[in-house]
Amino acid sequence: MERTDLGRIVAFSDGVMAVAITLLVLNIDIPDLPSARQDELEGKLFDLLPSLAAYALAFALVGRYWMIHHRFFERLRAFDGMLMALNLVFLALIALMPFTSELVDRYGDEPISAAVFGAALGIAALVHLAMARHALSGDLFHEHARRVPEPFAGAISLSLATIFLLSVPVAFVSTFLAQLMWVSAVLLRYPLRRLGG
Amino acid sequence: MERTDLGRIVAFSDGVMAVAITLLVLNIDIPDLPSARQDELEGKLFDLLPSLAAYALAFALVGRYWMIHHRFFERLRAFDGMLMALNLVFLALIALMPFTSELVDRYGDEPISAAVFGAALGIAALVHLAMARHALSGDLFHEHARRVPEPFAGAISLSLATIFLLSVPVAFVSTFLAQLMWVSAVLLRYPLRRLGG
Amino acid sequence: MERTDLGRIVAFSDGVMAVAITLLVLNIDIPDLPSARQDELEGKLFDLLPSLAAYALAFALVGRYWMIHHRFFERLRAFDGMLMALNLVFLALIALMPFTSELVDRYGDEPISAAVFGAALGIAALVHLAMARHALSGDLFHEHARRVPEPFAGAISLSLATIFLLSVPVAFVSTFLAQLMWVSAVLLRYPLRRLGG
Amino acid sequence: MERTDLGRIVAFSDGVMAVAITLLVLNIDIPDLPSARQDELEGKLFDLLPSLAAYALAFALVGRYWMIHHRFFERLRAFDGMLMALNLVFLALIALMPFTSELVDRYGDEPISAAVFGAALGIAALVHLAMARHALSGDLFHEHARRVPEPFAGAISLSLATIFLLSVPVAFVSTFLAQLMWVSAVLLRYPLRRLGG
Repeated sequence: MERTDLGRIVAFSDGVMAVAITLLVLNIDIPDLPSARQDELEGKLFDLLPSLAAYALAFALVGRYWMIHHRFFERLRAFDGMLMALNLVFLALIALMPFTSELVDRYGDEPISAAVFGAALGIAALVHLAMARHALSGDLFHEHARRVPEPFAGAISLSLATIFLLSVPVAFVSTFLAQLMWVSAVLLRYPLRRLGG
Repeated sequence: MERTDLGRIVAFSDGVMAVAITLLVLNIDIPDLPSARQDELEGKLFDLLPSLAAYALAFALVGRYWMIHHRFFERLRAFDGMLMALNLVFLALIALMPFTSELVDRYGDEPISAAVFGAALGIAALVHLAMARHALSGDLFHEHARRVPEPFAGAISLSLATIFLLSVPVAFVSTFLAQLMWVSAVLLRYPLRRLGG
Repeated sequence: MERTDLGRIVAFSDGVMAVAITLLVLNIDIPDLPSARQDELEGKLFDLLPSLAAYALAFALVGRYWMIHHRFFERLRAFDGMLMALNLVFLALIALMPFTSELVDRYGDEPISAAVFGAALGIAALVHLAMARHALSGDLFHEHARRVPEPFAGAISLSLATIFLLSVPVAFVSTFLAQLMWVSAVLLRYPLRRLGG
Repeated sequence: MERTDLGRIVAFSDGVMAVAITLLVLNIDIPDLPSARQDELEGKLFDLLPSLAAYALAFALVGRYWMIHHRFFERLRAFDGMLMALNLVFLALIALMPFTSELVDRYGDEPISAAVFGAALGIAALVHLAMARHALSGDLFHEHARRVPEPFAGAISLSLATIFLLSVPVAFVSTFLAQLMWVSAVLLRYPLRRLGG
């Protein structure tokens, strides 16, 4: 498969992630106040702060996964059916974010909602890792990308998978701790980049 | 019409399919629980498993049709008004997926909802077949694509059309059987690819 | 402004139109039936036929306008601030379609809803005509595009503007007649193409 | 990072802004009238005029920010992690528009809603300014872009930041005055362009 076809797969993936990231805003519900009580709007908006934080976190995480996807694809020189299938599974998990993010926003104290959120992103990272392994074994990378030492094929995917899958059991101990782990997944990127992730 | 114009038609088609596939997530409804009964969330999420399965199937099917579309367009060298019109009809049927998929999710036991789902995708495959036939007869393919033996122009489209249109009467016998046929449409692709589909 | 910039304006415009055309499906409401009465689903789906027809018409019309936009931009060699502004107004009117189309779907017998639908598309065609005139007078077309005789700059835009603006007063006589005019706007394209529109 | 990567970041950003601008239409609610009172539709649609005005203003403002983004990126020759992060923050603020715009539409007389609207766009402009400063100091611009005198890196961003941040306190004096300032932000662009913004 030629380079131009890769371009279209990338464009389709970008489209899916761009729509998913923009749909996140629909989770922030406009307060519903009767006209006689509109002076309570300030308090109601204040109550939306956790929703806004959930929006910011989900936006940052989709952005994070988009960046990994982006860096992975710029190293590819070819594609096969397996990579296409794995990519679709990856996209299906990312496109779930408007659902899992609203779940966490509405039922933040319930361990199960945090577990679902963590599991979806953890599995997405595993799928991405599988894509990297498959591309390595199938010789789908550009020459110059192969020369980068081993870890690049999965350092970031592996740490994201670890963080998010670990956050599933952690959520049953403390949902707050699980949320801290997710925030760390956004911030952790800089040191890891030196490994070529 | 030149190659660059083809690029824009492809970009528009990709956009429509990327939005349609991402809107599927809106069909998974967040459970609505009063604060006193949030401990029932686990059970409610368990009840969502069929919705998640419907999401996965619909995502895989739109992805499947996107791949056919993708492979068809990379073989084109030119375009005409008829192909543009057929392409729009194809997109209109794919963009119906958020509707037909929710129909099946909500009324899975009703034959009519399965019939509507199967009919929309069956007709979409027929339209794609018509695009392939038209491109063949109108000499719109690249030279190297024409040399591929006959069946490529429609082997996959034809099997998808057959599976989905057959699932319409089958749905009135057993909706479960119809659903099995749809799943097979996702999995069937590997053997068929050897025919050049 | 260089050709590559044009590419990004086109990509943004395509994105807006692709999203708008895909949001149309959200206007087709899933019937809401209690579980005891799911056998009435067939009848309910039958009642959705006008909604499906409205979907098909709106999809075809957005597709129609996208094609005009597409053909206009492939003739451009440059861009200025005025064209950018007109293009945004054009997009804002096209992006209204999910609203105006649902209005017609819900209140099809009310002249005012048909008038709003016709006016939005009529003004969009006028704006497109203004873009063509501006590009002609500002020498923004490719040489080879300028050589095409005059009418190309607006034959289609002008007929669409006429049909849709005329449908506004017609709607107050008969909404059915107005709807016929809109369908004709989809079908009319073939003869007009010879004029180079 | 090479030019082609820049292309994908631009495509993703365009996708986010195209979806955000198109979702604005969902804020215009179709009037809900029982069948016996459909003759009141005209009055109800008349009541929607402020919603339509809010739609037009929000569409123009997202379009405005898209243009700034567009002009900034065409001057870039390279990218780094910081610029990527700032760009995501910028996009997250623009993607909030469907929310802040509906807030203003529903609670136009409440100073707090106008303040939220102004703050989101003011901060977005500040983030854009930070992107420009970072690109200048990090030597990420094309040679020919650097030769343009200083102000280009932020004249427009700075004025937008000023207008929108100033509109926050102004909203507590008069929401109408704040709205006038927003409209001016759309119109102000022509004189400023001479500064190279």
